[in-house]
Amino acid sequence: MRIAQVAPLTEAVPPRFYGGTERVVHWLTEELVALGHEVTLFASGDSRTSAKLDATWPKALRLDGSVRDPYALHMVMLERVRQKCDDEEFDFLHFHLDYFSWSLFSRQPTPFVTTLHGRLDLPEHQPVFNTFPSAPVISISNAQRRPVPQANWVRTIHHGLPENLLMPKPVSRDYLAVLGRIAPEKRVDRAIEIATRCGIPLKIAAKVDPADQDYYDELICPLITRNPLVEYIGEISDHEKSDFLSGAIGLLVPIDWPEPFGLVMIEAMACGTPVIAYNRGSVAEIIDEGLTGFVVEDEISAVARVDRLTGLDRGAIRKQFEARFTARRMALDYLAAYRGLMEPAEPRIKLVSSAE
Amino acid sequence: MRIAQVAPLTEAVPPRFYGGTERVVHWLTEELVALGHEVTLFASGDSRTSAKLDATWPKALRLDGSVRDPYALHMVMLERVRQKCDDEEFDFLHFHLDYFSWSLFSRQPTPFVTTLHGRLDLPEHQPVFNTFPSAPVISISNAQRRPVPQANWVRTIHHGLPENLLMPKPVSRDYLAVLGRIAPEKRVDRAIEIATRCGIPLKIAAKVDPADQDYYDELICPLITRNPLVEYIGEISDHEKSDFLSGAIGLLVPIDWPEPFGLVMIEAMACGTPVIAYNRGSVAEIIDEGLTGFVVEDEISAVARVDRLTGLDRGAIRKQFEARFTARRMALDYLAAYRGLMEPAEPRIKLVSSAE
Repeated sequence: MRIAQVAPLTEAVPPRFYGGTERVVHWLTEELVALGHEVTLFASGDSRTSAKLDATWPKALRLDGSVRDPYALHMVMLERVRQKCDDEEFDFLHFHLDYFSWSLFSRQPTPFVTTLHGRLDLPEHQPVFNTFPSAPVISISNAQRRPVPQANWVRTIHHGLPENLLMPKPVSRDYLAVLGRIAPEKRVDRAIEIATRCGIPLKIAAKVDPADQDYYDELICPLITRNPLVEYIGEISDHEKSDFLSGAIGLLVPIDWPEPFGLVMIEAMACGTPVIAYNRGSVAEIIDEGLTGFVVEDEISAVARVDRLTGLDRGAIRKQFEARFTARRMALDYLAAYRGLMEPAEPRIKLVSSAE
Repeated sequence: MRIAQVAPLTEAVPPRFYGGTERVVHWLTEELVALGHEVTLFASGDSRTSAKLDATWPKALRLDGSVRDPYALHMVMLERVRQKCDDEEFDFLHFHLDYFSWSLFSRQPTPFVTTLHGRLDLPEHQPVFNTFPSAPVISISNAQRRPVPQANWVRTIHHGLPENLLMPKPVSRDYLAVLGRIAPEKRVDRAIEIATRCGIPLKIAAKVDPADQDYYDELICPLITRNPLVEYIGEISDHEKSDFLSGAIGLLVPIDWPEPFGLVMIEAMACGTPVIAYNRGSVAEIIDEGLTGFVVEDEISAVARVDRLTGLDRGAIRKQFEARFTARRMALDYLAAYRGLMEPAEPRIKLVSSAE
């Protein structure tokens, strides 16, 4: 199949730093190529891919200080995709650009779908989905759909990781872990409180965005420096994650926002590490209760579950990861969705055979 | 003619506060209605217009803290315009949204044009105009075009003000004036230096955006407070401008950026007040040298021209405003441009009459 993957230009594919959407697009693209498909990746020129790269701009826009208007280049990219569609270069188009493609591509024949990567509960989302009720969209969790039932939901496809990207390591386990980004909605303060109440060390491997530096300096840093149980080790790369997660008794995900997916949870599972996560957004869909971790409602239930983490079978957690959250499974799900959208719509009137 | 004016949703039309694009769209829309045209204004719901208002969102987005993604609502607005085009509701479409409409409206039959309101010399503008070489565009000064000669320039149409919005007032004149916004590219520091060298009081009627507050506090405020000749009177409304500008010996426009138009210059002329402006961007097109003001290159030539301001004929300045910079003239220019774009393109092969 000739497939176009259209990624944001914000980060490279894969991103040099943090960037969930671009990581997922990368893994999906690599799997589709491995499965024998002819994939064109529309992305920034510093992307690395086994697909054919169509680069609208040489550098990821978040790292390119010369560009003041990133939307200009996204509109250029959509025009490039559209011109290639007009030349019938693709069998299917897969967009990762929210609503930006919908007006333009609803009025041409190549079938397309958009994976929605963000939260959908903001006031502007209601007119968006009321205006584009037929644009086919894929959710990354069922929870993500709730605010906009009027959208043309094709299916939910959970994210997946390359099967061998992160692996269980034979290391001793003596701490709880936090992984990702320090921001108000991630509630690292709760993780510190949970670990402290349990008397177990906490290691925090997380980046701090410039927008969140004040939050970190004023509210989180004091909690870390005055607490001998807590260690802040900064941002870590994929290469360091297997050791970091394998060494953890469990991963704490005490989020306070409608998380659309939450890659860190499946990163932990890939290492056989169980997860304790607050019941927000996708969490209850990702965690198999009592198998790969526990879904909790507050600090009290979180603390109560920490004792039970060591009773979980880490081999079974890894197996559940392999069954549910690999990039190969994700790619096969997407291919099924593409094929469903490529089939001609059901005829409205039942045809009567001439033999009848 | 059934005309759609499609404005940004950022500010109301007209804006409650500063907002050059939305002010111009307002004046143009009012003139087109006065000239008997059937105009639909696509703008925020707090706009005030004699046209039919089509409001995608009730409130100007800059004032609506609940909206986190303004682009979502602009894409909704473009889809609304496109659906009405598909229903053949308009004879002509006039966009004020940069490049956002070009992919979608290049592929439908209703003729359209975009007025470009901003600077065009940023790196992302090259791929934009290379990708959309046939989207018809109107410049607000010839200078604005220079970085992108490859665009499909229809013509330059200078902005205009409603003829009686600002009028000369019989007041005494004893100061130089600065009007608009305090920001690094406006170089109010130069205006202070020029007035001080001339020993003439300077009155600054200008807003300070939150983004420029540090610049004001650190660099401009000290220059004002320690200088007895300089008075900062804050932002003023249109109602106050006639008195403020009429009382000025001249308006100083010591800009240091490629100003695409510069409404303050024609606001001064409407009051019969001459302008001294630095030769950047549009300036040399707007000022009639020695008639409505002087174009200067640096502080030395600016100071030298201040003495000559009182020798200019303020009645002649007002007359030149009426001849060149009224909203009526602007609207008639736009109507001519619309009509030019509505004519069918020249046939490529000359048709031979059957009588020949």
